[in-house]
Amino acid sequence: MSQDLGSSGALAISAAIRAGKTTATEVAKDALARIQAFDGTLNCFTEVLANRALDEARKVDAALARGEDPGPLAGVPFAVKNLLDIEGLPTLAGSVIRADAPAPQHDAASVCALRRAGAVLVGALNMDEFAYGFTTENSHYGATRNPHDLTRVAGGSSGGSAAAVAAGLVPLTLGSDTNGSIRVPSAFCGVFGLKPTYGRVSRRGAFLFVGSLDHIGPFARSAEDLAAAFDAIHGPDLLDPVCSTHPPEPCTLQLRLGQQDLRIGIAGGYFQKQGEPAVFEAVSAVANALGADRTIELPEAARARAAAYIITASEGGNHHLADLKKRAADFDPHTRSRFLAGTLVPAAWVSFAQRFRSWYRDRMREVFRDVDVILAPATPCPAIRIGQETIVLDGKEIPARPNIGIFSQPISFVGLPVVTVPVHLPGSMPLGVQLIGAPYQEAALLRVAWELQARGIVSAAVPEAFRTIPAGVLA
Amino acid sequence: MSQDLGSSGALAISAAIRAGKTTATEVAKDALARIQAFDGTLNCFTEVLANRALDEARKVDAALARGEDPGPLAGVPFAVKNLLDIEGLPTLAGSVIRADAPAPQHDAASVCALRRAGAVLVGALNMDEFAYGFTTENSHYGATRNPHDLTRVAGGSSGGSAAAVAAGLVPLTLGSDTNGSIRVPSAFCGVFGLKPTYGRVSRRGAFLFVGSLDHIGPFARSAEDLAAAFDAIHGPDLLDPVCSTHPPEPCTLQLRLGQQDLRIGIAGGYFQKQGEPAVFEAVSAVANALGADRTIELPEAARARAAAYIITASEGGNHHLADLKKRAADFDPHTRSRFLAGTLVPAAWVSFAQRFRSWYRDRMREVFRDVDVILAPATPCPAIRIGQETIVLDGKEIPARPNIGIFSQPISFVGLPVVTVPVHLPGSMPLGVQLIGAPYQEAALLRVAWELQARGIVSAAVPEAFRTIPAGVLA
Repeated sequence: MSQDLGSSGALAISAAIRAGKTTATEVAKDALARIQAFDGTLNCFTEVLANRALDEARKVDAALARGEDPGPLAGVPFAVKNLLDIEGLPTLAGSVIRADAPAPQHDAASVCALRRAGAVLVGALNMDEFAYGFTTENSHYGATRNPHDLTRVAGGSSGGSAAAVAAGLVPLTLGSDTNGSIRVPSAFCGVFGLKPTYGRVSRRGAFLFVGSLDHIGPFARSAEDLAAAFDAIHGPDLLDPVCSTHPPEPCTLQLRLGQQDLRIGIAGGYFQKQGEPAVFEAVSAVANALGADRTIELPEAARARAAAYIITASEGGNHHLADLKKRAADFDPHTRSRFLAGTLVPAAWVSFAQRFRSWYRDRMREVFRDVDVILAPATPCPAIRIGQETIVLDGKEIPARPNIGIFSQPISFVGLPVVTVPVHLPGSMPLGVQLIGAPYQEAALLRVAWELQARGIVSAAVPEAFRTIPAGVLA
Repeated sequence: MSQDLGSSGALAISAAIRAGKTTATEVAKDALARIQAFDGTLNCFTEVLANRALDEARKVDAALARGEDPGPLAGVPFAVKNLLDIEGLPTLAGSVIRADAPAPQHDAASVCALRRAGAVLVGALNMDEFAYGFTTENSHYGATRNPHDLTRVAGGSSGGSAAAVAAGLVPLTLGSDTNGSIRVPSAFCGVFGLKPTYGRVSRRGAFLFVGSLDHIGPFARSAEDLAAAFDAIHGPDLLDPVCSTHPPEPCTLQLRLGQQDLRIGIAGGYFQKQGEPAVFEAVSAVANALGADRTIELPEAARARAAAYIITASEGGNHHLADLKKRAADFDPHTRSRFLAGTLVPAAWVSFAQRFRSWYRDRMREVFRDVDVILAPATPCPAIRIGQETIVLDGKEIPARPNIGIFSQPISFVGLPVVTVPVHLPGSMPLGVQLIGAPYQEAALLRVAWELQARGIVSAAVPEAFRTIPAGVLA
């Protein structure tokens, strides 16, 4: 029983615990067992918090025993990208430089929010150093492997978050997205991911990468679990000055409304070039299922991506300037040269990029007068091989890592919410399709994801190899 | 009669016109005659608007004849730095690049405000190209000469504004101050100048130099004229998004309250080094007259100046980036290399400078808990010679032009209001002392200036050579 539930969804686990079919403690033990069984292979976790998880699980069970309601995610194991503060544990953000940083005295706001909903934290997850990458090939802590093909990357920078959910180690994780760091690993690992509207989820207690562009969001294996996690974490936070005062909205309750009344279009031009044929097939599969046939032009997407690059490099580099001066050798070689280059970006470029951003934000708002949801590929290709340096797009061999974000960067650049849904074409690695909405329209995107899931167009089953813990693995 | 009034103050002129002792038309003709007689020598004006001035003056006279009140500055001739829009005249901002710019359809907000108070615009005034300089040695339009010594600079960048007032060509002018461009020429030409609190005077219709640091303010030969001009131009402007909503305050009415109840200190440390002895004597003369003996430490002034430099170079350079790429040869050699260097300033430096600025702004607010007005030199030396490349400060020979702002830059950097008062030590060129206040405390500074003037410590008499128009000069 408990082992079946281990790879079940978050809401299914919570329902089983509330119905007395199992306990939070049993579920936590099962999650810890799965992590012990499979994480040596996958390398999702940088820290497993067995004692803390079991303590919290017992409290959930005790609350239930007293007749209290521990919350909609009662006893659901979850884990978070290790740039979110966990009380007592240094927030490494994928680096060795931060190993000496003082351990935080509080969990991050989004971690607290999931705990208030009853969920149980089991650990911290691997990532690209300081979130600057699309592959989670971390030189200090190793690459996270893709559960669908262990020779391939999990995507990044929230690679541990996507892979842990994809392999069923936990049903729910949190990550962050600056230029695609939730959407890329969701796509590569074949799970659901939500990058909320900029400012809609508190970033208090997050080690930021690029303050102007960073978002916190959830990963799950179903639309309803994604909605439940988002419901728990979004809303105003007076202690985070960037957090929006836009009122929260119960998205889970609205899922069954489906997509009938929504106007859905397909991103044209820029978003229909420079990708492998399979990614456009995935978009078509989703569009056909939704009866969407209108093409929507998003103006100046290439320029938006360039501007996102400039702001990312410059703000990111400036953030780490003191350490780059003092101890550049301690940075991951994958990020060091980019951060160093970022510190040299002329302010005139950044200023121009910010001016362009204002213009582009206004244009994108106009686009959403005529459409509610826009479909676009999440990545230009399925997961690349670990160590792969180049990809071929439109017949041109180009560096792989910086170009994985080609379709995600122009969207996060102006903070639009995106749900990434997992599509499995026959004989292919998973692919992701972005469902892009106007600011604060997460509920509509989740309804479309739910409808696609209900019709079997998108899904996130745990791969065969991770469904059952092999006998004898556990001590 | 009219020629005596020509070198009189603004309020004296307005009173004489209202009393029927002369007319606005006579006063305007007299101002135009003085400009014709002396500006060939001084080079204050880049454009004289004789027809417009006479038209406006006649309207003032007609209004008086109808028994209407044309305003507290009825018939007062004034002129403005040529970065403020004048209807129908290209706003050159000291450049040749803007000669082809379309002529504005409206006067700048501050020009309109003075006209609403009854004042009469007579022309546009010389400046450093794009306001980037402290000397008004403009390579396109020539250097403005100091009325107290024609071999010396007028200071800059509002050199034409200060010299025109000092020589009695007009009793009132407007200029702008980014790092000292009102305070430096006030000091060098021996007149009163007011750099208001950042945002307290509308910049609508001004060709900006560095948006984060630019202020518009008046020059005059008395504290009461300065107060009257400030009263006319300050207050909210819904059409200038940077303009503060802080309520306006009638400063002229408060002048006679004097300084008795104000706590006055002397800036210490940084502000007592790197200047010629005379400038510190000028501060002492003012301090003694006011009974001020407390020394106030302003934290990290050197760093504030460095940060102001970085923001100035970067924002200024970015502002002109397109022209620097297309037609660098058309820039003034005095500004070109600084603008070009400014475009290359790394964004990390600007970001750090802005972070420091927030810190420094908070510290400066704390300083003003214990004091109302702080005294500091306006410049490290009196007016330098035209063409002079170096000055000697504390025994070290250093480049003159960039170091003239050493005492003004740390103050404008956080937008504090400053009145510069003119001190004439025996046998010396005029010197300026900054009266620095907390945000929105212009009234207090003007009261101190008025008290100093009443006691004869500060004054701005027109030099002998410009008191009477030589016979036969006028055609």
